Amino acid sequence: MDRYIRNRIYLSSDDQEKLKNYPLLIAGSGIGSNIAECALRTGFEKICVVDGDLIEDSNLNRQNYTENHRGTPKAVALYERLKSINSQADISFINGFITPDQMPETGKYNAAINALDFHDRTPLLFDEQCLKNGIPVLHPYNLGWGSLVTVLTPQGPPLTTIGKTENFSELEVVEYAAGYRRFWQKPERWLEETIAQYKNESELLPPPQLAIGSWYAAAMCTHLLVKMATGKFYKKFPEFYLCSLFQEEVLNDSRCLSQNLNGLKKN
Amino acid sequence: MDRYIRNRIYLSSDDQEKLKNYPLLIAGSGIGSNIAECALRTGFEKICVVDGDLIEDSNLNRQNYTENHRGTPKAVALYERLKSINSQADISFINGFITPDQMPETGKYNAAINALDFHDRTPLLFDEQCLKNGIPVLHPYNLGWGSLVTVLTPQGPPLTTIGKTENFSELEVVEYAAGYRRFWQKPERWLEETIAQYKNESELLPPPQLAIGSWYAAAMCTHLLVKMATGKFYKKFPEFYLCSLFQEEVLNDSRCLSQNLNGLKKN
Repeated sequence: MDRYIRNRIYLSSDDQEKLKNYPLLIAGSGIGSNIAECALRTGFEKICVVDGDLIEDSNLNRQNYTENHRGTPKAVALYERLKSINSQADISFINGFITPDQMPETGKYNAAINALDFHDRTPLLFDEQCLKNGIPVLHPYNLGWGSLVTVLTPQGPPLTTIGKTENFSELEVVEYAAGYRRFWQKPERWLEETIAQYKNESELLPPPQLAIGSWYAAAMCTHLLVKMATGKFYKKFPEFYLCSLFQEEVLNDSRCLSQNLNGLKKN
Repeated sequence: MDRYIRNRIYLSSDDQEKLKNYPLLIAGSGIGSNIAECALRTGFEKICVVDGDLIEDSNLNRQNYTENHRGTPKAVALYERLKSINSQADISFINGFITPDQMPETGKYNAAINALDFHDRTPLLFDEQCLKNGIPVLHPYNLGWGSLVTVLTPQGPPLTTIGKTENFSELEVVEYAAGYRRFWQKPERWLEETIAQYKNESELLPPPQLAIGSWYAAAMCTHLLVKMATGKFYKKFPEFYLCSLFQEEVLNDSRCLSQNLNGLKKN
């Protein structure tokens, strides 16, 4: 079977075996749908997806569902998509919402993706249970033009160390990341503007999200999962990863520009 | 129809209209398959895909095809995938290879993606024709753990200014980008190692590629297309965009680390 021959150089057959036997729990199959597909194609062949939501029109701008899926459960549609990509893979699903009273078993997985909506304390309780069971938890956030990912580990602090515990939401994580970058003199102005606009909206709506952010999140999370499965270095919370084209522009506009000018003077 | 309501804040309804009426030509539906899906979901509703290739097992590690597509034409499978996502979109396909004698009409598109394999001079001739017709051409390159994208414009130089014209290949573009970063004292060591390993292989094989690189390329190209369609700034060749998690680590390991230490000393 030639499925993974183009992974050569990047992943040895030994690495590929490690990915195959590194079971993932994907909690929430919104942005989780993008991450699951990218991870499966790369070689993570043991995946369980959990979600109780139904597919709506408004998901099609970014999640990997199609029009004829509208009204069907996300967990089922994602299961079918993953099996169509790799029928031999060990894919399972739970068609139901995670709640404080209904937590999936986390002990049998090697890592979890926390892609749950912040309606209540459920995402924080899910973290708690994963960390208690000794597995790392990836938190992806769609920032529209880019994405933010941070990894909680059993040894590190919980997410709530950065803000209030009451009504904690994804907004706090994003504001923390933006503040961190500003503090270290690398402000993400595009992100700060988005946060300001979101907070100014007349009613409280779910955060805006683009396919671009979902695709970045899938790439970033899959790379992090490969690092974990093959024992490589990765940054842990309170550190984080933030990727966007805008960063590549700042690089050239400010720091590299001054280097360019210095280089020119010498010539 | 609620398809684009979650694009709010990032894209105004005016922007959305601009994307809808910005026809794209996607030449090559390998990495083109990932880009097409991300672009369509974002709102580019006029897309033509051109490819004469059939789907193989070895594509499934990164392109958006499924097992039951094996042996079928990529252009047809991609057309069907795109229509399943948005049945109202104006999607078309040409099931045939682009060759020096068989170039698609490029005048009716606003931008093109050159995702053609470098077997011969065809990709360069395709660029020539697009630029002659006044449309920009995006060149995406899968770097495994990241992706490289550069945009040729009618006003700028052609791709071959960076290397020999005989047997020009994607490798030259990637080596140019790695050399540029090294020159500006921001070496991408992971990329230089990959290039060295690839050049050391005992036989000449197609370059290795991961899903991670394809997902990055889709996000980056879609963002660039949005910038073009809405009249925003973007870097043009010989400048380029290069995204990978490794860059986020360099940031913290060297420059930010020294800042962190300075910060600590003050406290």
